[in-house]
Amino acid sequence: MSFRARHLLGIDHLKPAEIVTLLDLAEEYVALNRRTVKHSDVLAGLTQINMFFENSTRTQSSFELAGKRLGADVMNMSMQTSSVKKGETLIDTALTLNAMQPDLLVVRHPNSGAVNLLAEKVNCAVINAGDGRHEHPTQALLDALTIRRAKGRLQRLTIAICGDIAHSRVARSNLILLGKMENRIRLIGPSTLMPAGVKDMGVELYEDMREGLTGADVVMMLRLQRERMDGGFIPSEREYFHRWGLDAEKLALAAPDAIVMHPGPMNRGVEIDGTIADDINRSVIQDQVEMGVAVRMAALDLLARNLRAERGAKASGVMV
Amino acid sequence: MSFRARHLLGIDHLKPAEIVTLLDLAEEYVALNRRTVKHSDVLAGLTQINMFFENSTRTQSSFELAGKRLGADVMNMSMQTSSVKKGETLIDTALTLNAMQPDLLVVRHPNSGAVNLLAEKVNCAVINAGDGRHEHPTQALLDALTIRRAKGRLQRLTIAICGDIAHSRVARSNLILLGKMENRIRLIGPSTLMPAGVKDMGVELYEDMREGLTGADVVMMLRLQRERMDGGFIPSEREYFHRWGLDAEKLALAAPDAIVMHPGPMNRGVEIDGTIADDINRSVIQDQVEMGVAVRMAALDLLARNLRAERGAKASGVMV
Amino acid sequence: MSFRARHLLGIDHLKPAEIVTLLDLAEEYVALNRRTVKHSDVLAGLTQINMFFENSTRTQSSFELAGKRLGADVMNMSMQTSSVKKGETLIDTALTLNAMQPDLLVVRHPNSGAVNLLAEKVNCAVINAGDGRHEHPTQALLDALTIRRAKGRLQRLTIAICGDIAHSRVARSNLILLGKMENRIRLIGPSTLMPAGVKDMGVELYEDMREGLTGADVVMMLRLQRERMDGGFIPSEREYFHRWGLDAEKLALAAPDAIVMHPGPMNRGVEIDGTIADDINRSVIQDQVEMGVAVRMAALDLLARNLRAERGAKASGVMV
Repeated sequence: MSFRARHLLGIDHLKPAEIVTLLDLAEEYVALNRRTVKHSDVLAGLTQINMFFENSTRTQSSFELAGKRLGADVMNMSMQTSSVKKGETLIDTALTLNAMQPDLLVVRHPNSGAVNLLAEKVNCAVINAGDGRHEHPTQALLDALTIRRAKGRLQRLTIAICGDIAHSRVARSNLILLGKMENRIRLIGPSTLMPAGVKDMGVELYEDMREGLTGADVVMMLRLQRERMDGGFIPSEREYFHRWGLDAEKLALAAPDAIVMHPGPMNRGVEIDGTIADDINRSVIQDQVEMGVAVRMAALDLLARNLRAERGAKASGVMV
Repeated sequence: MSFRARHLLGIDHLKPAEIVTLLDLAEEYVALNRRTVKHSDVLAGLTQINMFFENSTRTQSSFELAGKRLGADVMNMSMQTSSVKKGETLIDTALTLNAMQPDLLVVRHPNSGAVNLLAEKVNCAVINAGDGRHEHPTQALLDALTIRRAKGRLQRLTIAICGDIAHSRVARSNLILLGKMENRIRLIGPSTLMPAGVKDMGVELYEDMREGLTGADVVMMLRLQRERMDGGFIPSEREYFHRWGLDAEKLALAAPDAIVMHPGPMNRGVEIDGTIADDINRSVIQDQVEMGVAVRMAALDLLARNLRAERGAKASGVMV
Repeated sequence: MSFRARHLLGIDHLKPAEIVTLLDLAEEYVALNRRTVKHSDVLAGLTQINMFFENSTRTQSSFELAGKRLGADVMNMSMQTSSVKKGETLIDTALTLNAMQPDLLVVRHPNSGAVNLLAEKVNCAVINAGDGRHEHPTQALLDALTIRRAKGRLQRLTIAICGDIAHSRVARSNLILLGKMENRIRLIGPSTLMPAGVKDMGVELYEDMREGLTGADVVMMLRLQRERMDGGFIPSEREYFHRWGLDAEKLALAAPDAIVMHPGPMNRGVEIDGTIADDINRSVIQDQVEMGVAVRMAALDLLARNLRAERGAKASGVMV
């Protein structure tokens, strides 16, 4: 098996072969989840803790189902209402948690880098479920699986990522993953919503949607995150939709079999027209959610295998 | 087996034989729950999601225990703090959830009809755990089981439903169920708390408690839901208790072996005198809670059987 | 087996032999929790409900993991957002809960004595997870296990409990437990933070940290609970740290092998210097968290055994 990572903190540290291993295993879990009895025991007896310092019903639910279907003892900790409020530091929270001996720790945090810091302090495998504007690796992996299933491959595609890129860890993780796989990536959006330094990333930049979408195989829309905008340019929703919202007319410029993606939750009529979101011939938005559970099951499974191997080696004194 | 429903959205679409089937199965779960080891595997490997758009610790707990005792992988989603706040539509929420492939979905929603709408969009079995002023079928079923156990039958009883009927889905579902079973139903309460169109429902209406309670076999008190009253008549608690609160003197007019019910949580001293609520010779209020878990286990079990049968038929190409 | 208690409401009613039995069993769970597969079935099929009327992520998580690792069906009820808000009395809440037939009930409540009251109304085993300023028995037991492991014994030690003793149920339960075990106990803190009647408890009182710490084997720091102080003396954090905060200079007066404890969450720089908290040669603060899960597993296990024995005896008509 080529998946060697101890943690899943970002796409950055994954090799292409590791990504393929994970997606291949996820395919097996897609099949399992489509059965009525959708349960395995690969994580039986292991403890998984979901530690969310930021609210996200959708992502937390996906990880919770993933762990439960694999037989883990799963516990959610909503850290917004916890000791954090009593002034405990992140490090103390990490050490406390670690002393409860989880095997798998899923963390979402509003600050970029907080999950990496936490991973250094604990003995278990850590999955980053989104940290600030930094990374959201399972989102990129589920998007990759969705694309691979829809297009039959994950290489040599023209992929347009559109909208509020500056505030999006989804965009960042996707950009890294899809770049590793030798795709042609276009970022489309208002220049004020482009992240700094994006010009050095080997991507094509467009401010004009029509231009950027022309011939694209994959159209990946992003949520307009008005809540994260601090000052600067804030277009009206109507103006935003007019210029950067995906509608039938703009989509017609993409490849005839182009697929439409969105990480959810959607602002219908803001970044995407509702009719397109619901068009089962173009939209793979529901597939993304389905792939999300499967990809998380694969990630939990692979990390647990590595954890067992590492602990077994340590217990038997074998050097690795 | 006579229970053929795909969903449990209301009492309205259940046949009397289906109700009896469900209550009979619930009896088996009453017995199971009274043991120390109270666990079965009939839902092992299935995913149950409890999706509450409105807070209800009591009802959610009852469904959660029911699912866990039957071995399902159970997940709670508190939708008040979720994507709903980010502006996601109910349909999008339903589709997202459906893509996570639950088998059993328990939903509470503040809007009448929202659960029916949701059920049309998903592939799993849906249980309505209360929608607006519309239906709350498991409450009516647990009340029916409580009555059947206390009175030895569910037919030919005089049942008085008292108080704030206009705001009560509990009353509505009970009225339908008990009507199907050929009971004599009396609604007692201030005319301002009677629902519109109630005169055509084949029930007897009383504004005077003493008159309405005379000879009743079952006295079903309702919670005064002041929080749902928008303008109109709002009696003081003291005046309400004086006229429509159940006290010993009023209860003395009912049948000598009349039982007293309340769906909880109670406003002691408002709709019911505390002494009566605690009188184990008359009050079956705790039995209602116990029957609640058993009835929900029976409902989950029966819907899962139908789901398996339907999916099996679909997989093998058999028409049903 | 010498553990005969039906509930674990406080340390007060436990005999020294019962404490030793519980700690010995907890040692077995320490070993289990250090494995990757950390799961037992001793509570399989039993229902455990964690009912927290006061928020405590740390304690609730510890009980939740304990129950899940022992195979119980575990349910959390956050009672702050529940029927309590709708005006239900504590007794009604208890009776409702009891009707759902839990076997093990873990309760935290802001009012002293509330858990004892609740225990009188239910048929299951109750564990007090902290009630007002009264007791927090599992905290005292985990502290005892931590001390026993670090010092090799639980007797004839000089133990300094320092800081905000008046507001601390942790201090109270520890004082009772450590007193039963024939230790020499010193309470150190500002006189305004000493509980009334403490002079009759057979302990030594100190206002001066240096004096009180001299020669101590165990230094138990408490969290300064400013949120519980209603008027009266409130020192500035800086002044408090200067006089009663644990720093290297003050700790140097304790025994050379003295250990440092804190129930968490810590106010670094207020009651304890961060460097000391992190010094793995002196601080056993992370051990306390680890022992917490093990002690709670032992408590749940022992109470479940007694419950089975009692119900078995009742079922077979044997008098006990």
